[in-house]
Amino acid sequence: MTRIFDDPAEFADDQLAGFLDLYADRVRGVHGGVVAHRGEQPQVAVVIGGGSGHYPAFCGTVGPGLATGAVVGNIFTSPSAAQAYSVGKAADQGRGVIFSFGNYAGDVMNFGIAAERLRAEGIDARIVVVTDDVASAEEIGKRRGIAGDFTVFKAMGAAAAQGLGIDDVERIGNAANDATRTLGVAFSGCTMPGERDPLFTVPDGHLGLGLGIHGEPGIRDVEMLPARELAALLVDDVLKNAPTGAGTRVGVILNGLGTTKYEELFLLWRHVAPRLRDAGYEIVDPEVGELVTSLDMGGCSLTLMWLDDELEPLWRADAYTPAYRKAAAPVAALREPTADELAEADAVVTAPEAGEAGRRLAVSVRAALDAIAATIAEHEHDLGRIDAVAGDGDHGRGMVKGITAATARVAECGDDVGGGWLLQQAGQAWAERAGGTSGVLWGAALEALGRHLGDTAEAYPAADVAAGVREFATTIQQLGRAEPGDKTLLDALLPFADDLERRVGDGAELADAWAAAADVATQRARETADLRPRIGRARPLAEKSVGTPDAGATSMALVVTAVGRVLQNENDEEHQ
Amino acid sequence: MTRIFDDPAEFADDQLAGFLDLYADRVRGVHGGVVAHRGEQPQVAVVIGGGSGHYPAFCGTVGPGLATGAVVGNIFTSPSAAQAYSVGKAADQGRGVIFSFGNYAGDVMNFGIAAERLRAEGIDARIVVVTDDVASAEEIGKRRGIAGDFTVFKAMGAAAAQGLGIDDVERIGNAANDATRTLGVAFSGCTMPGERDPLFTVPDGHLGLGLGIHGEPGIRDVEMLPARELAALLVDDVLKNAPTGAGTRVGVILNGLGTTKYEELFLLWRHVAPRLRDAGYEIVDPEVGELVTSLDMGGCSLTLMWLDDELEPLWRADAYTPAYRKAAAPVAALREPTADELAEADAVVTAPEAGEAGRRLAVSVRAALDAIAATIAEHEHDLGRIDAVAGDGDHGRGMVKGITAATARVAECGDDVGGGWLLQQAGQAWAERAGGTSGVLWGAALEALGRHLGDTAEAYPAADVAAGVREFATTIQQLGRAEPGDKTLLDALLPFADDLERRVGDGAELADAWAAAADVATQRARETADLRPRIGRARPLAEKSVGTPDAGATSMALVVTAVGRVLQNENDEEHQ
Repeated sequence: MTRIFDDPAEFADDQLAGFLDLYADRVRGVHGGVVAHRGEQPQVAVVIGGGSGHYPAFCGTVGPGLATGAVVGNIFTSPSAAQAYSVGKAADQGRGVIFSFGNYAGDVMNFGIAAERLRAEGIDARIVVVTDDVASAEEIGKRRGIAGDFTVFKAMGAAAAQGLGIDDVERIGNAANDATRTLGVAFSGCTMPGERDPLFTVPDGHLGLGLGIHGEPGIRDVEMLPARELAALLVDDVLKNAPTGAGTRVGVILNGLGTTKYEELFLLWRHVAPRLRDAGYEIVDPEVGELVTSLDMGGCSLTLMWLDDELEPLWRADAYTPAYRKAAAPVAALREPTADELAEADAVVTAPEAGEAGRRLAVSVRAALDAIAATIAEHEHDLGRIDAVAGDGDHGRGMVKGITAATARVAECGDDVGGGWLLQQAGQAWAERAGGTSGVLWGAALEALGRHLGDTAEAYPAADVAAGVREFATTIQQLGRAEPGDKTLLDALLPFADDLERRVGDGAELADAWAAAADVATQRARETADLRPRIGRARPLAEKSVGTPDAGATSMALVVTAVGRVLQNENDEEHQ
Repeated sequence: MTRIFDDPAEFADDQLAGFLDLYADRVRGVHGGVVAHRGEQPQVAVVIGGGSGHYPAFCGTVGPGLATGAVVGNIFTSPSAAQAYSVGKAADQGRGVIFSFGNYAGDVMNFGIAAERLRAEGIDARIVVVTDDVASAEEIGKRRGIAGDFTVFKAMGAAAAQGLGIDDVERIGNAANDATRTLGVAFSGCTMPGERDPLFTVPDGHLGLGLGIHGEPGIRDVEMLPARELAALLVDDVLKNAPTGAGTRVGVILNGLGTTKYEELFLLWRHVAPRLRDAGYEIVDPEVGELVTSLDMGGCSLTLMWLDDELEPLWRADAYTPAYRKAAAPVAALREPTADELAEADAVVTAPEAGEAGRRLAVSVRAALDAIAATIAEHEHDLGRIDAVAGDGDHGRGMVKGITAATARVAECGDDVGGGWLLQQAGQAWAERAGGTSGVLWGAALEALGRHLGDTAEAYPAADVAAGVREFATTIQQLGRAEPGDKTLLDALLPFADDLERRVGDGAELADAWAAAADVATQRARETADLRPRIGRARPLAEKSVGTPDAGATSMALVVTAVGRVLQNENDEEHQ
């Protein structure tokens, strides 16, 4: 819906006033439209135009290398002959004027009258009409002009900028039109300023094939298509309408009509480009974006201009206008990275050589991750349920995703790597796959633990493991910016780290200390039921959460408990 | 609504694949995003990023003079630390990496982890967080980043391109952020690919003040405003939040969020610019368009960056990226037209000196136009009624508009001009004001008649007038491309011209011949009731129109009849 306006009836004039303020350093307003400031040498004036509502058509493409002037009519309405005459006269630099516009009855009449009036005053004036829309008629001369306007204007604008005479520029314009074909589709209608309802509609779940840029009827409505099939439809139909004897080098426009966004167009281009190449075409300087729009209409169009030796350099030539800017030099100055640079950038950090102790640690890490996976799988449903009380209920699912990714990544690593490396790999995989804040925190904490432990130590005494756990906790605390008592996983994790540190400091064996600390974590996780969340997504539902423990603290307690059992088993085996 | 996709879950990757195909000559894809090809000299890498759905943020602004790389997350989702790390590493040219992004928890965590990982590998990595959204928090450090991302990236990109070191580029980035303030409004929500319903909605007839670019809550919903008041709201609120001690030169962005179109933004700019100037600000290189979007969200935002001697040249510097291209040279090469050129272009063609006969003709023309005005006013309702049978019923209104404009224009002309000049003026005014095909045809025909008669003849014999009427008819026939029998005004006009010519050729006096020919026109207009329309808007309702005469033929008969009475009166007076 068109939302920004004052008096809807003055929309076209009001928006033009803003445009002229914005680009006062390069264009000036005249009665009926816009004229570009002049370059060093006088050139043939290429004056384009039509109704408003099609930006950047038409005034957005006035400037060096493109149009010399634009006639600006009311929304979707031909400018009057007097407007076209006035802009043509102001744009003339003594080398004549070519009016160019899409083939609509009003425009044909009014630009025709304006051209006659200029000729009556001794100014050479010509007409180049654009007829690219293959859907609008069988007979080419009766077809409408849509996004192909741009290829024709571009060819003439470049030719005029190169200093060619009016006969050549006119001939090139007609040649560009002969070489250009477009097919468009609409997904939704457009609304005029001040109106609530669109000018036309496309049936729900359908697209209008060949619909014009003012809602003129198309060929038919078809069911909405996935991008791949939409691309095939557009490419095949435009190719079916190729000019006779055309070559295989094509300038291409994938044009957005208003509310179809750039990311959608790129997605479509992903299918359009290979389909054209598979059909034997070489794509030259493609343009994907908005060149001829229709207010807030949803839809897009595909334009091909078949290039020859004369049209190709004109299509590739530099231009600098408010909405369309193209320069070869900045890209030519770039270079692809060298093989060495690529190798350096893409260098995978490989696992360091692990020592004996590091490889033993790896066995423990694998066992611990498997145990975590088992306990999380067992409690996935419960974790989801308690998270749903004041959160979105995805905590169990997120933990499953994280630990699954971690064990899968670790399974890919060879048997000769160390435990520190495995923990780092597990952390990276967890963060990439689990999603959400919790996934990032778990992943980063595992990585920090792994970096702390490393793979080259002679041994991993209990104090070192406890310090690693502290590193794990500190990472979460710093990244998550939570405090104890905020009702987060820290309310289980910090007491665990504290208790583990104290017991190890007091000389306890790691397995015993860990098991006891895990009991503390379990107890403290349970006690989070009394807390109110002070951070994160659960905060707005703080009161509701009282009486239910925090899901993140609960899963943390489950994890350290499971790891404790692994350590106890290893201890038992060692002492057998 | 987002319409183009294959698997909605793969939207972000799929669109990136299209982007990379399109711009393969200047960027390359790496795990997690995009890296620009290198320039001649190694530079500090400015790596920007965040979720997808904000194009041209972020990958659309990668290139010379702007970002060195972009990390591309899923839609509205932070990229992972591994993605950020990978892009940062690939973008590094040996002079360090600065990650810059909007202030969102996920981005802060993930880019933070990536920076740490790079530092662990010996690559200097810094973080510059953007916090421009004044609506999102009182405390600046807690504010979100929205369109002000662009000013910060632009300043750093330009500084890096100039070869500055990482300390300077980081300092400039933070200075640019300190100097930047944005306020946004939303008119409508956005839909995720594959979803039918928007992520959020804005109450009907309202705008969401300060709403974030992912639908995060704003300050409040206010009733939709006319453009002038919306501009005042945005300007005043941003100025209220000006940095302390800021100067009066500002870089400005008026940013469209997705479905708010360029023409709407220009219209808004028409009010924004003067309001800033009235507040004492000098606007430097303003940008009006899409720089940070939010899928198909409706809305816009106003960003100001307060410039100092360091920031201003960086803001003005050249850049060449897929979506943002700026170069000073093409505009500098232009010149405003000289006074002479302006005078020539704007020269009004003045009325030629009229002879005695021409001035007498002017009296007749004024009388004839008044008579036409009277008869059209009298029959406006009837003309509308018969036009409504198979047309849109506006023929009476259109004729009233045309003749009213014509008489008004003629009234402005002095008493010394000739009748040919008056007819040309009447025709131009009619065409400009009446609207529609009929207005263009009437206007052009009157002009043709006026040109034929001219103002300098010794006399206007009946044969000359009849030839002028033929010119009038031929103009309509050629412009309108209708044939006799198509059920148009030609079906009254051509018999009139034929009959007039014949009688005058046979030696009849003009007034007598005209009156008789007008009777023929009236009869033939009535007979159009038997015809089926073969051209124009009435064609689809051809059958329905049978039994009703053509409105255009009917008004033509009324006009020639009224003019006939004027000629008869003049004749009578002459013979008294």
